[in-house]
Amino acid sequence: MTYCVGMVLDKGLVLMSDTRTNSGVDNISVFRKMVHWQVPGERLIAVMTAGNLATTQSVISQLEERTKAPDERSNSLLGMPTMFQVASEIGRLLRRTIEEQQSANGPSGSGRFTASIILAGQIAGMEPRLFLIYPEGNFIEASTDTPFFQIGETKYGRPILIRGYDSSMSFEDAVKLLMVSFDSTLKANLSVGLPLDLMVIGRDTFEPTHQRRITHDDTYYQAISSSWGDALRNAFHSLPDFGFYP
Amino acid sequence: MTYCVGMVLDKGLVLMSDTRTNSGVDNISVFRKMVHWQVPGERLIAVMTAGNLATTQSVISQLEERTKAPDERSNSLLGMPTMFQVASEIGRLLRRTIEEQQSANGPSGSGRFTASIILAGQIAGMEPRLFLIYPEGNFIEASTDTPFFQIGETKYGRPILIRGYDSSMSFEDAVKLLMVSFDSTLKANLSVGLPLDLMVIGRDTFEPTHQRRITHDDTYYQAISSSWGDALRNAFHSLPDFGFYP
Repeated sequence: MTYCVGMVLDKGLVLMSDTRTNSGVDNISVFRKMVHWQVPGERLIAVMTAGNLATTQSVISQLEERTKAPDERSNSLLGMPTMFQVASEIGRLLRRTIEEQQSANGPSGSGRFTASIILAGQIAGMEPRLFLIYPEGNFIEASTDTPFFQIGETKYGRPILIRGYDSSMSFEDAVKLLMVSFDSTLKANLSVGLPLDLMVIGRDTFEPTHQRRITHDDTYYQAISSSWGDALRNAFHSLPDFGFYP
Repeated sequence: MTYCVGMVLDKGLVLMSDTRTNSGVDNISVFRKMVHWQVPGERLIAVMTAGNLATTQSVISQLEERTKAPDERSNSLLGMPTMFQVASEIGRLLRRTIEEQQSANGPSGSGRFTASIILAGQIAGMEPRLFLIYPEGNFIEASTDTPFFQIGETKYGRPILIRGYDSSMSFEDAVKLLMVSFDSTLKANLSVGLPLDLMVIGRDTFEPTHQRRITHDDTYYQAISSSWGDALRNAFHSLPDFGFYP
């Protein structure tokens, strides 16, 4: 499984992903699920992937034209005029890759090899944009009503995002919120694991404002993980007490 | 979908279940998912069900021998010597009911009609016991390591249970904890809905110590639901702040 969150803030975009992949519980590996491409001063495009790893790696490889010799490659995403076209192209490649694998594997391939992608980025002259791309190749865009997308193991970490998100929050608070959401998920589900990848994309900067890998020995993550338990218990005790006899 | 939680405390057992059933999102009904039987002073047996409603209602009906005329019925659970035997009997009926439906519906029945059951209760002379019964008919029992069971839409409400549960907590605190867990789930998932059913079973009482239906206009539930958002935000702000430059 996987857990990735992308959110739109007034100040820009914040992305976080875990790195655990597993095939069963006895075959666990670490793979980066967040990649990005940039044209300095003009665009930054980032994607996070969840689902079948061979599918998502194939999509990324096709975007980077890795079938060609290194000096003949050109990433077509870097020339597209809008984020909408970028989303369409990634959706097309995703759907086609899944279809190829499914048809090559006959009836037993049905429903397997699927994946989802969160796309985030900004092109000069336009707003920062955030998309959720489905295995079917279609996609939706974040709005003020739904300002963040999750993929993978989304449920454990969702209540705190719903309650804590505020579009005017600082990048620091957004990172704190994401760490709490990821910590809740990691505590409940073995298929999501450290290290985490973090990227903050300030509006109109066209480069990662901050980028960090959060590992087991990250002191801030450890502090969040240990103090969140206490903070939750305090929050719980601050609620009005229940009485059986009103 | 459904959300039910049963927990073992030092003081006894606490059960909570929602009442929403749905077949698609355009066919929503209210059904009680918690039933209990008792022999005053001797035993109290309660079950909560999740999954296919026809299956779970059939299991309950068979337990109560509703195929017979009212005065010929006898609930065999009321004569069994141990909770282990009660769990075995419910598991057997559950597995058989699912199998019958699946085989009657041929290949298209495969994997449908399943259900899970939480069984809680106490028989005089023995400890309060809590079981999770699987569609396969087998079951597990709660222990000090895993002192609560959830069935249905379990993920949204799990992090707060993991963090908030304490076997020595009062019944009032346990109800508060369950209300927070249910509120988090209701906020995130339309397939779980009010009203909620609550039952508290004090150790060695052999009758429901407290029993309540929590509806939309329950002032305590409303207070929890509105103040939990603030409490969570306060808890969040009480955590150490993140800084990009250490």
